[in-house]
Amino acid sequence: MSKVDVILTGGAVATMNADFDLFDPGAVAIRAGNIEAVGPAERIAAAYSADEVVDCAGCTIVPGLINTHTHAPMTLLRGLADDLRLDVWLMGYMMPVEHEFVRPDFCWLGTQLACAEMIHSGTTCFADMYYYEEAVADATAQAGLRAVCAETVLQFPSPDALSYDEGLEHARDFILRWKGHPLIMPAVGPHAPYTTTADLLRACGELAREFDVPLHIHIAETAQEAENHRAEHGMPIVPWVKKLGVFEAKVTAAHCVHIDEGEMRTLLHHGVGVAHNPTSNLKLASGFAPVVRMLELGLDVGIGTDGPASNNDLDMWEELRLAALLAKCVTSDPTALPARQALAMATIGGARALHIADAVGSLEAGKRADVAVVDMRSPHNTPRFTRDPDALYAQLVYATKGSDVRDVMCQGQWLMRERRLLTLDEQSLMAEAAAIARKIDTFLIQREESVLSKLLVIGQVAQKKTFEIQVKVRLADGASIEGLLDSSEIVILKPSRRRQYDTYFLFDDPWHNRLRYREDELLDQNGEVQDVVCRLTMTSEGKDREYAKSVLLSRSRFDAPATRSLRFYREYFKPEAEVEVHKERRRYRVRYGGTDFAINLDRLIKPDLPGLFLEIKSRTWSKQDAERKAEMIGELLELFQVQEQELVKPEYVKLAIKA
Amino acid sequence: MSKVDVILTGGAVATMNADFDLFDPGAVAIRAGNIEAVGPAERIAAAYSADEVVDCAGCTIVPGLINTHTHAPMTLLRGLADDLRLDVWLMGYMMPVEHEFVRPDFCWLGTQLACAEMIHSGTTCFADMYYYEEAVADATAQAGLRAVCAETVLQFPSPDALSYDEGLEHARDFILRWKGHPLIMPAVGPHAPYTTTADLLRACGELAREFDVPLHIHIAETAQEAENHRAEHGMPIVPWVKKLGVFEAKVTAAHCVHIDEGEMRTLLHHGVGVAHNPTSNLKLASGFAPVVRMLELGLDVGIGTDGPASNNDLDMWEELRLAALLAKCVTSDPTALPARQALAMATIGGARALHIADAVGSLEAGKRADVAVVDMRSPHNTPRFTRDPDALYAQLVYATKGSDVRDVMCQGQWLMRERRLLTLDEQSLMAEAAAIARKIDTFLIQREESVLSKLLVIGQVAQKKTFEIQVKVRLADGASIEGLLDSSEIVILKPSRRRQYDTYFLFDDPWHNRLRYREDELLDQNGEVQDVVCRLTMTSEGKDREYAKSVLLSRSRFDAPATRSLRFYREYFKPEAEVEVHKERRRYRVRYGGTDFAINLDRLIKPDLPGLFLEIKSRTWSKQDAERKAEMIGELLELFQVQEQELVKPEYVKLAIKA
Repeated sequence: MSKVDVILTGGAVATMNADFDLFDPGAVAIRAGNIEAVGPAERIAAAYSADEVVDCAGCTIVPGLINTHTHAPMTLLRGLADDLRLDVWLMGYMMPVEHEFVRPDFCWLGTQLACAEMIHSGTTCFADMYYYEEAVADATAQAGLRAVCAETVLQFPSPDALSYDEGLEHARDFILRWKGHPLIMPAVGPHAPYTTTADLLRACGELAREFDVPLHIHIAETAQEAENHRAEHGMPIVPWVKKLGVFEAKVTAAHCVHIDEGEMRTLLHHGVGVAHNPTSNLKLASGFAPVVRMLELGLDVGIGTDGPASNNDLDMWEELRLAALLAKCVTSDPTALPARQALAMATIGGARALHIADAVGSLEAGKRADVAVVDMRSPHNTPRFTRDPDALYAQLVYATKGSDVRDVMCQGQWLMRERRLLTLDEQSLMAEAAAIARKIDTFLIQREESVLSKLLVIGQVAQKKTFEIQVKVRLADGASIEGLLDSSEIVILKPSRRRQYDTYFLFDDPWHNRLRYREDELLDQNGEVQDVVCRLTMTSEGKDREYAKSVLLSRSRFDAPATRSLRFYREYFKPEAEVEVHKERRRYRVRYGGTDFAINLDRLIKPDLPGLFLEIKSRTWSKQDAERKAEMIGELLELFQVQEQELVKPEYVKLAIKA
Repeated sequence: MSKVDVILTGGAVATMNADFDLFDPGAVAIRAGNIEAVGPAERIAAAYSADEVVDCAGCTIVPGLINTHTHAPMTLLRGLADDLRLDVWLMGYMMPVEHEFVRPDFCWLGTQLACAEMIHSGTTCFADMYYYEEAVADATAQAGLRAVCAETVLQFPSPDALSYDEGLEHARDFILRWKGHPLIMPAVGPHAPYTTTADLLRACGELAREFDVPLHIHIAETAQEAENHRAEHGMPIVPWVKKLGVFEAKVTAAHCVHIDEGEMRTLLHHGVGVAHNPTSNLKLASGFAPVVRMLELGLDVGIGTDGPASNNDLDMWEELRLAALLAKCVTSDPTALPARQALAMATIGGARALHIADAVGSLEAGKRADVAVVDMRSPHNTPRFTRDPDALYAQLVYATKGSDVRDVMCQGQWLMRERRLLTLDEQSLMAEAAAIARKIDTFLIQREESVLSKLLVIGQVAQKKTFEIQVKVRLADGASIEGLLDSSEIVILKPSRRRQYDTYFLFDDPWHNRLRYREDELLDQNGEVQDVVCRLTMTSEGKDREYAKSVLLSRSRFDAPATRSLRFYREYFKPEAEVEVHKERRRYRVRYGGTDFAINLDRLIKPDLPGLFLEIKSRTWSKQDAERKAEMIGELLELFQVQEQELVKPEYVKLAIKA
């Protein structure tokens, strides 16, 4: 009779070994953090004794689940912004908030909170990729969980590195410090092909090989990414990354939603593991990853939750269930990805995908003692059929919930008993997280107080001259601008022809902010489009003053290049209403009396208004100068022989609202 | 200060009323089973007092969830058979087991177990459709839950009715007995268009209108169903059902996966509610229901779990989460079906879909007090952001789990407090369910002991003559059958030409059972296919005895028409191996010496064997007769001048295995 530390006995044991051995009732004997033996309860009882014998009757003993892709500190951003498009979510919310808040203490706290959640639902190992991975590793080790921690490397500045050289240095330092740790496997995390460079990817691959550590990367998450890559590099993502030597390292590729059969074979050939993230892929509408085909080909596919800001939790039971369900409907085959295979993906398959299957992923003698005990005695898990051995897997996959996990052990250390956490103080973690959430709320509330602050946060905004003097006149049919401008007093500086598509976002705020997205097509002499410039202009209406023949607008005005799509701005700014104005414009910069004016000759297409509109405009920072220019505009109108009844006071956008 | 029975206070209140009012902290005052008032906690505290004031700080108070489609008693079949195709699952497992086990006590127990699970996860109302709905209603009312209970009506015999007239009578009796019950709304449940008849559907619609009760029906769950309907009736399902007057009743249509825009508009026009069952649709690979379009059009779409045998649970939180996630990826739009809308579908939308929104579905004064209190203080639900009011819905939809529900009340009666059930003894329910599961396991184990018992259970099997005498000869090239049969001693009774595609299922059981699926194409004189007959033949090998010139096979032999697909049988019987034999056969029924023989002249295509094979066969129930016929076969061979070395002993299937 051999002495061990702990014996778990009396429950069904799903070993997830190569033969998928089930023992019911079975037992697991654990010594010095490792699994000493697994088998039928009677056989273990006959061969081993232990001071601690845990009764698992009514429970199933499974390998601790392995979450192959997450960003643990993002627990602190869980529920911050949802139901948004990826770019709005990422660039409008995640990145500005990360820029402001992500520091080592943030990552440490977020990781500990993540560990609390993961332990509760039976996860004993996860693959992480974030900033300040040092803090992530430290928080994980303190919680007693196992992790592959990849320090993120990006081509542009990140919360923890101003340049990618610095990022690479951080990764190297991190690996040096943590390599050999019993629970933490340091790794390098080049974020994705589209956020790195060829040189950077090559360097990351070399770094991973130099230290024989894993490399974690996002691959082909969205169709856009895959299409852009093909357009830019003339080949799909996977062969391009392969050419850089990256796959010579021990790689785990997250997502792989948009890869073709050839790419799958390349991944297989290089032993690249895949992390499938079904909830995140659905939530961000990234697509349905071809997991059934990958599994058929023999790829090592694990399951991941992705970060809790796009999931919004770290529950692997939900994830493996969704993987099993989704695969059936996507392939129109209800026998696809059966329960046993789904549980395998979340355990031994995940271990293989992370290149750590020699140590974890199944309950086998010699492996680390990473174990979860699942209590099956609840109404939602009743009854249990035993005729078909696969029924146990079906029960675990289709009916069991994270909240059924009773006990969790990692490397022989108890992390949870009877649902009580032993290594973490979850109350204080939750209180600290609530305090951070309040700060983030305050930051965003301030930002979102006005359209301007939302505009400022996404960049490159310049404040423009405050005062605008303008007059608009409806011209009679047949009026010729050349005739009007044919005066010795007027010098034409810069004529141009344009088609302008304006979308006005209207807001119901106290400032009556208005945001104009303008797509300005500059035409050549043949009417062909020469250039397109998109600009975003925000105006807040001040008091207007009317002169005899012109209008003075006093208003703050901000202007920025529109680097993102109209759709992005619509979803980001959420206007109360939208109005479109389309027109053909001949624009003349003219000089009159030593002062510059803009003269526009417009034909309105939307709203479809007959005739031509003549606009004369000028801007200035000075109110006094504005009054002077208003007088000069009066002179110009006289020169053009415009009658007062021809004046049109409202702006185009107001004409459009009326129409 | 007005006195009420209970005040829930201090939590966020998500009313799900028309304005989606949120009160945080809010309170709900309850009197005599109804909601008396809802509002900010302070306002309620100022206006009402109660003996029972429940502190809901840190919780969210929501309307009890509404499961718009399930088959509650099927909890007892949960996990019985999974990862199977719909027909194998239904006809191979569910129906035979239901036929054997479904009685009123089964339905009562299964429903009570379902109620325990539903209360645990915050569901206060469900729409059911099963057999013995009387027992379902009784079990539900005893548990204190609310339900729309539809008695199933089918065109063919069901576990509780031998004919559809009887089914209709049951439905009428059931409605008469339960109409007016405070918790149970009786209803009529014609199963589906493809399992009923036009007359039966019309009668069900009339019955529902006569008593003003709801009608529950499955519509367009699978593509096959929609295609078959179109082929058979020349129109899609929805207009066909409409023509029968069914939609004049208060209808809830489950699934609606395969309906087009016109059908959606018809449902909308008639106020038909839809029950969307995302998990079941994925698990059975039925397809992705066009819910986003239905919601855009203004249809009342609720969410259902479907029966727990195809889900495998009754957790509405998982279901509403999946509905929200799935819609995004299916429409490639991450802003589709946002969290608030998902929660609305599971509450007020479900109530509308079931035609009971005047009574339940939102927290509003005057409605029934059906309430769930969700504890948000757990790591997976931390932190909480308050900047955006929609964040609360996002938290409930994307992070909250059924196990977070703390208290549940239906019509003012507490069903669960602090996660303890108050109206049900779940331990004894689970024990009883386990006992039934053991019986079902035993039944299926006996059935599955042999291929024969599995074959018998799916019907129309006949045992055939036990003894078969046969001889097979390889003919030289150029041999002519007409030459051989041109003898005055042989009368040709019935010549025919066939192409036969045989698939043999091989089993590793003690009886060496073999199952042959034969697709037998009968050809006309021009070689065109005249008729196709599919048969299933099972043989168990007995001892063979060899005569000088023939082989005696003594074996049990069972034969049945193959009414289902080869794929069905493959998935149902799960053979160890499969072998295919394809051949062209000229078959002659001949009479020789007053005895009938079958003579086959076969050209083997698969395996591709050269030359022609001549078979002479006869069958009998008598061993003595078999010996007589063996002798006669010897005579025939002499007549045909066949040399002994030309004899081929193995059967075709064995030749195929070797090849």
